[in-house]
Amino acid sequence: MNEIAEDQQAQALYKELPRVVIVGGGFGGLAAARALCKAPVRVLLIDKSNHHLFQPLLYQVATAILAPAEIAIPIRQLVGHQSNMTVALAEVSGVDAASRQVLVNYLDRRDAPLDYDYLILATGASHNYFGHDEFAQFAPGLKNLNDATSIRDRVLRAFEIAEIEDDPKAHQDLLTFVLVGAGPTGVELAGAIAELRRFTLASDFRRVQPASARIILVQSGPRILPTFHEELARAAHKRLEEVGVEIQTDSPVTGVDARGAIVNGKRIASRTVIWTAGVTPSPAGKWLGVPTDKSGRVIVRPDCSVPGHPEVFVIGDTAAFNHLGQPLPGVAQVALQQGKYVASVINARLTNDFVPPPFHYFDKGQLAVVGRNFAVLQIAGFRLAGFFAWIVWAMVHLMFLAARENRIRVITQWIWSYLTRQRGSRLILSAGGTSPLFD
Amino acid sequence: MNEIAEDQQAQALYKELPRVVIVGGGFGGLAAARALCKAPVRVLLIDKSNHHLFQPLLYQVATAILAPAEIAIPIRQLVGHQSNMTVALAEVSGVDAASRQVLVNYLDRRDAPLDYDYLILATGASHNYFGHDEFAQFAPGLKNLNDATSIRDRVLRAFEIAEIEDDPKAHQDLLTFVLVGAGPTGVELAGAIAELRRFTLASDFRRVQPASARIILVQSGPRILPTFHEELARAAHKRLEEVGVEIQTDSPVTGVDARGAIVNGKRIASRTVIWTAGVTPSPAGKWLGVPTDKSGRVIVRPDCSVPGHPEVFVIGDTAAFNHLGQPLPGVAQVALQQGKYVASVINARLTNDFVPPPFHYFDKGQLAVVGRNFAVLQIAGFRLAGFFAWIVWAMVHLMFLAARENRIRVITQWIWSYLTRQRGSRLILSAGGTSPLFD
Repeated sequence: MNEIAEDQQAQALYKELPRVVIVGGGFGGLAAARALCKAPVRVLLIDKSNHHLFQPLLYQVATAILAPAEIAIPIRQLVGHQSNMTVALAEVSGVDAASRQVLVNYLDRRDAPLDYDYLILATGASHNYFGHDEFAQFAPGLKNLNDATSIRDRVLRAFEIAEIEDDPKAHQDLLTFVLVGAGPTGVELAGAIAELRRFTLASDFRRVQPASARIILVQSGPRILPTFHEELARAAHKRLEEVGVEIQTDSPVTGVDARGAIVNGKRIASRTVIWTAGVTPSPAGKWLGVPTDKSGRVIVRPDCSVPGHPEVFVIGDTAAFNHLGQPLPGVAQVALQQGKYVASVINARLTNDFVPPPFHYFDKGQLAVVGRNFAVLQIAGFRLAGFFAWIVWAMVHLMFLAARENRIRVITQWIWSYLTRQRGSRLILSAGGTSPLFD
Repeated sequence: MNEIAEDQQAQALYKELPRVVIVGGGFGGLAAARALCKAPVRVLLIDKSNHHLFQPLLYQVATAILAPAEIAIPIRQLVGHQSNMTVALAEVSGVDAASRQVLVNYLDRRDAPLDYDYLILATGASHNYFGHDEFAQFAPGLKNLNDATSIRDRVLRAFEIAEIEDDPKAHQDLLTFVLVGAGPTGVELAGAIAELRRFTLASDFRRVQPASARIILVQSGPRILPTFHEELARAAHKRLEEVGVEIQTDSPVTGVDARGAIVNGKRIASRTVIWTAGVTPSPAGKWLGVPTDKSGRVIVRPDCSVPGHPEVFVIGDTAAFNHLGQPLPGVAQVALQQGKYVASVINARLTNDFVPPPFHYFDKGQLAVVGRNFAVLQIAGFRLAGFFAWIVWAMVHLMFLAARENRIRVITQWIWSYLTRQRGSRLILSAGGTSPLFD
């Protein structure tokens, strides 16, 4: 048999292989794709953006420490070389589970059906304005690179406009930053803006006293970092106050507009409100028409599959996996471990291997950083706050960056920022010199 | 006299100092601002963007080699610490030379007048579609960071869409890139896209054969790089063909639309046309109401001032400075030297020092790069093409980067790209998975 015939036969065999469609190239989808590297399947990974994003460092893009490319890497570059892998830039609009098809929008084709044998939905989460979507235009959230550069633009522009604003009231409103929600994102953003104000911008302005800027972190519940141990939350609270962040707990936000936020019934005048209060899962539950929990996450079985559809898996932020009566939290580690797990389930079913036991989450702990030199860390019963936790935080984040190259870039930037107290990406890229912010 | 009184007296004296307004934070404006560091003046530097841009490397942002922040640095960070300097993010809309005022748009104030004693207009140039502004939406030019990321989006997206396009004709149109204009920008972009196609993307795609992409460099005149010596243009031409760029000389472009370009009367079907054909100066001439040359540049006197207004200087791309019967070219070196020069003129007038002799341009030569390992270089009578010219090109560009930090980042990226043939910033950031390019 000559080579061409062999090749044709190989191709024909390849086309016989079951097709796994993965939707989403975040931590979960990517882990699944990588783990299916040698499985006897054809894999199609669909994402609406071309890059995998390292979300834990997104707040550093929003505060001009890192450039977007330093925490993002093309999905194609990460898994495109796998011989059984096709990567497609397209948007999924639905699922027809009965006929085993995903509906895909690409080119001029809308809702084009695409067959699958196995489906992994790793479609993540977006901002949650708790029924007040009208807040979105005034208080952007932080989930993707465009969100991050948009927040960066707003924060930097506020200082620029304050520099040319004569009216003392308007000047102070420009220098008042309100962060709604004191989970890790809110805490990390607050710390980073506090330092931007205190060190980076201090010498550059003539009329603005950056140190007079106010950063107000607002939390509806009784304390910040509710998912952390109370002791760590207290330590982070104290540290935030030391770097000049004002914290308001038990303070629900009932209104946001162009002129500020209504906190605890009182108006805080501010030109920059940022929404870090919560996330809402992707509409995977609606696509499938299956039961979801209160927040809209698909209630999955112990093997992460959907009831009635053992060939459909839902993982990560968009799944509600019951763990000792509680759903697992929407963090990278859960998505990552579930991605690997469902790949092993699919592989086992196809190779008639032992089907793995139910998914078990291995909690590697939680970390949150408060500016330079300070982080809080909890792993199982162990807790730590301060400089050493910060070192651990930095090492863990570098380790988990998907691409070696990004590690070098991030380290370079961190060392440089640490030594000079400058920020490497202080760019305002939205058009116009005249505050489109308020247009 | 106590300290407060001293301070007040110093402030009062400061307010007596003549006010120099510089419009534009490019090479010219920045050089002037820096050179006025110790002059007995108050300086106000106005720019509509917050950053100084190193334009010679902009084509590397457009081709995903460098990230925007790696070639841009906040103007405020560069000169904000100078004790006599105020930096303002605002847009200039006109000049009232009779009453010595610039009109500034900022905040909600439009055309707000601002007094000056000396005015330096360093307002640069933008794209020139030679009367066909309707081409702009289909064929973006390359002058600022948004242009660069927009071109990057288009180029990367074309490959992504080709990957899911079944129709062979549409597939080929997506993989056809047309560059209109073969000056340094066109040549450098063509070389960088050729390599992106050949090396970076080669292994990542399943259905696209990136090597089958066509890159067509179109020039209305008889040869590429018209400002270079013919021998170097020939060498660059040969090299471009070696890396797979098709060159069409004597080929005017008479039409551009969503489906391609009309070149030499014939349609080239392409989904990605990039305009690198020419620049048009800023409207400084109209603002001042003074004579301009054919292309709209202000005809300046031998000291770069405007006829009838010795206190107004126009420098860089927006000035026509007569040098041996020819206007000086619109390159960074001219702007930079003129910026330093006008600062010295202002300083001399104020300190009753000897007024400097007319501006004399010191030509440090020209460089253009064609992909990896190849550049062309001419300095006075000396000419060089090939690897050593490329080394010189790299060193010169690193040397002229305004910020030390950016040097480190650019070197890191270059070395990494050189060794791995990967690109560090392959991000598509415009919204949507479904080609908004063609919406």
